[in-house]
Amino acid sequence: MAKDNQFVSQIADIETDFPQWYTDVVVKTKLVDYGPVKGTMVIRPYGYAIWENIQRELDSRFKAAGVENAYFPLLIPMSFMTKEAEHVEGFAPEVAVVTHAGGAKLEEPLVIRPTSETIIGHMFGKWVESWRDLPLRQNQWCNVMRWEKTTRPFLRTSEFLWQEGHSVFASGEEAEKETLNMLSLYEEFAKTVLCMPVLTGQKTEKEKFAGAVATYGMEAMMHDGKSLQSGTTHYMGQNFAKAFGVQFTDKDGALKYGYTMSYGVSTRLIGALIMTHGDQRGLVLPPPVAPVQVVIVPIAQKKEGVLQACNALKERLRKAGIRAVVDDSDNSPGWKFNEWEMKGVPLRIELGPRDIESGKMIVFRRDTLEKEDCHLLAEAETVVGETLGRICENLYTRAEKRMNERIVRANSLEELLRGVDGGNFVRAGWCGCRACEDKVKEFAQATARVFDRENTFETCVVCGKKAEHTVFFARAY
Amino acid sequence: MAKDNQFVSQIADIETDFPQWYTDVVVKTKLVDYGPVKGTMVIRPYGYAIWENIQRELDSRFKAAGVENAYFPLLIPMSFMTKEAEHVEGFAPEVAVVTHAGGAKLEEPLVIRPTSETIIGHMFGKWVESWRDLPLRQNQWCNVMRWEKTTRPFLRTSEFLWQEGHSVFASGEEAEKETLNMLSLYEEFAKTVLCMPVLTGQKTEKEKFAGAVATYGMEAMMHDGKSLQSGTTHYMGQNFAKAFGVQFTDKDGALKYGYTMSYGVSTRLIGALIMTHGDQRGLVLPPPVAPVQVVIVPIAQKKEGVLQACNALKERLRKAGIRAVVDDSDNSPGWKFNEWEMKGVPLRIELGPRDIESGKMIVFRRDTLEKEDCHLLAEAETVVGETLGRICENLYTRAEKRMNERIVRANSLEELLRGVDGGNFVRAGWCGCRACEDKVKEFAQATARVFDRENTFETCVVCGKKAEHTVFFARAY
Repeated sequence: MAKDNQFVSQIADIETDFPQWYTDVVVKTKLVDYGPVKGTMVIRPYGYAIWENIQRELDSRFKAAGVENAYFPLLIPMSFMTKEAEHVEGFAPEVAVVTHAGGAKLEEPLVIRPTSETIIGHMFGKWVESWRDLPLRQNQWCNVMRWEKTTRPFLRTSEFLWQEGHSVFASGEEAEKETLNMLSLYEEFAKTVLCMPVLTGQKTEKEKFAGAVATYGMEAMMHDGKSLQSGTTHYMGQNFAKAFGVQFTDKDGALKYGYTMSYGVSTRLIGALIMTHGDQRGLVLPPPVAPVQVVIVPIAQKKEGVLQACNALKERLRKAGIRAVVDDSDNSPGWKFNEWEMKGVPLRIELGPRDIESGKMIVFRRDTLEKEDCHLLAEAETVVGETLGRICENLYTRAEKRMNERIVRANSLEELLRGVDGGNFVRAGWCGCRACEDKVKEFAQATARVFDRENTFETCVVCGKKAEHTVFFARAY
Repeated sequence: MAKDNQFVSQIADIETDFPQWYTDVVVKTKLVDYGPVKGTMVIRPYGYAIWENIQRELDSRFKAAGVENAYFPLLIPMSFMTKEAEHVEGFAPEVAVVTHAGGAKLEEPLVIRPTSETIIGHMFGKWVESWRDLPLRQNQWCNVMRWEKTTRPFLRTSEFLWQEGHSVFASGEEAEKETLNMLSLYEEFAKTVLCMPVLTGQKTEKEKFAGAVATYGMEAMMHDGKSLQSGTTHYMGQNFAKAFGVQFTDKDGALKYGYTMSYGVSTRLIGALIMTHGDQRGLVLPPPVAPVQVVIVPIAQKKEGVLQACNALKERLRKAGIRAVVDDSDNSPGWKFNEWEMKGVPLRIELGPRDIESGKMIVFRRDTLEKEDCHLLAEAETVVGETLGRICENLYTRAEKRMNERIVRANSLEELLRGVDGGNFVRAGWCGCRACEDKVKEFAQATARVFDRENTFETCVVCGKKAEHTVFFARAY
């Protein structure tokens, strides 16, 4: 695509240098900036507004499902981490440690939560006494910290924002069911709110959460064909219940351990939607999370009545629940068009003296880059509402089409390598052994993302033995 | 008041042991629990729902005022703290310090934000270039950490949740005006949402924020006559702008430092409303923030049609935007009455077979403890809406009456001591010198809360010299 304006010319080419394209876009659109400590990010208002929209949509879904919000402490005693053997092995290398506070050395070092299974397990252990207390289903919106060597805004930063839901059930069946239900909730959310197709399924032993019995993931295909893990749910069995004494007296009078599960999505979702929908002009934001859904650009704005008409239209749209702004800055219309395109606003309405006279408006769609000049100003609420709906559909449909076109099958390691080299997800059979999984990583720099629902392969893509699972392999962020 | 039920008998006497009453109430109503690390709290769902209501109400006010939300990093380089001399002196003794992360010792220790003027100043210094960038007004909802020796849930904990707003202006006048505007915003919020009367005004040099030119506070009188600082706004002049290089090119082409201000309220507000409105039976929650505004208690709930009628009423109320629940547990109606009274639900509706037959309902007000049996079931939405409104008015009016009755004047230290001993706020003249302020503290264990708007005293209550200010003195949390 031609670098046809002053904004696009500052953005690296999306096809040949996708990593730089991403960095250019997130910084230039003021979604994010780098914090003073290496690996940290500042989420600027335009980025944070996306997060607020994600939060509102997800939170209402959690509440409708009967989950309650709570808040647990940031600092976790180091000794908690070691109570679940796999958990400490997985997270200890990444934690930030508080050793001094209030001017003195602490008796026991405290870690900044990398995730809260341990401290929530401890509290659940205090609260759960009887089967009447179950199920217990709580969620928190908070910051977490994982010290990472290589970081990128939204995708991997030492601190990030997320929600983490934690539940205890009386039986393993109920906890497993909730683990799958929450995966479905995430999938529905990704599709309808982020307009983002995803693959969901179970993860391998190697890729599962430290301390879980089973982990399920939601994977999305980015513009470059790599996968981004966009959400996970974990069935813990009794691992954490035993480590933290989450016990209840059952109906039969016996003292039993509960079964726990957890689930989380993070500000990473912002990175996911950018890399799913963006194009050479910059961001393409899905209407449900776009901070600005409609920008109204006045044409000949100094002419009498133009700004007035623009503001009146804005008020009408706002009353209809649409997030609309008027750009009445001193910049030229062309500059405004390009800037708001870079910022990914789904719809632009152009309104000048002639439009006002004829009772019409020009509508420009960010997703198709097409102008429509047939709409009546008097029907603006309906036109905008319907067009935003069509944009959602189109964003989803074209991303899904791209993903489906880029899922290929492989019957050999060479085919697998060619597949991921070509920017595809590769479906292949796997025997289930760690050595073969490691071999794929070594040979093709690809990892097992999730299992397919059904196993449609006879043999393992590596060793040729019987295939136990069909796996989606991909390079991943 | 008689300890007339099984819940009240577990709560310490509000008049003779208010501190224990507070602890009993916050723990037994499951607002909060103690975290595993000393001085930390877990905010349980019933308490967190109050915080969510506070957030929603405040956030919409900030947005209407044109303030944008953002998110800044938790960890601040130690060196930032020392850039503003007074700031480091004030906060250094209270910070928690991260010395190790990712398995290695850090080159520079990082502090967990006790407040974010320094890191936000640093970022504003990067973002602000021209007068066109001003004013810059941002807010964040986040956790902060101040290591405290004596802690109490909501009132003083090592970690707490809050919002902190930070703004830069081109002139000192604008920044000072915003400092007073935000104080007014807090006051209006306290009155209408928390139904809580407050005193607002400037603070003394001794009581001001570390690094500010001037601090303004919002003080509320608790049940025991002590004051709780419930919100503060700070005018920083150019102190932080100079420390962090927040400079802009003005219209005249000259490079100038900006003027900054900040403001914050925290989960402490939950403590404030509990200690303002609570009584011997437990919580009395203001309707705008009550997680449950109406509890419907079925009478003879096993009789045909009763639960159905209760649930239908609940749905009607919810449709009208009222937070209603039905208590269909196995407990007796009497038990339910007492439990929901302890939990401070503003309105209870009792509904039994006879009520349903006659088309009436019994309404019980938590604030007055009075039953009304004259209301038509068909008019439930209107009755509930209006009654919740009357509860707000009554809560505010009676708290204001109590506060006004308990503001006394003092012309001598002895009078001042007698005043605070009697659970009053004491208005007195003050010469403005630190020695006299310290003397009040030493003699009466009271501190200067805020200045009165006008000075109505001739002489200082301590030294007898000319009074520069009229001060509200009080014992404080």
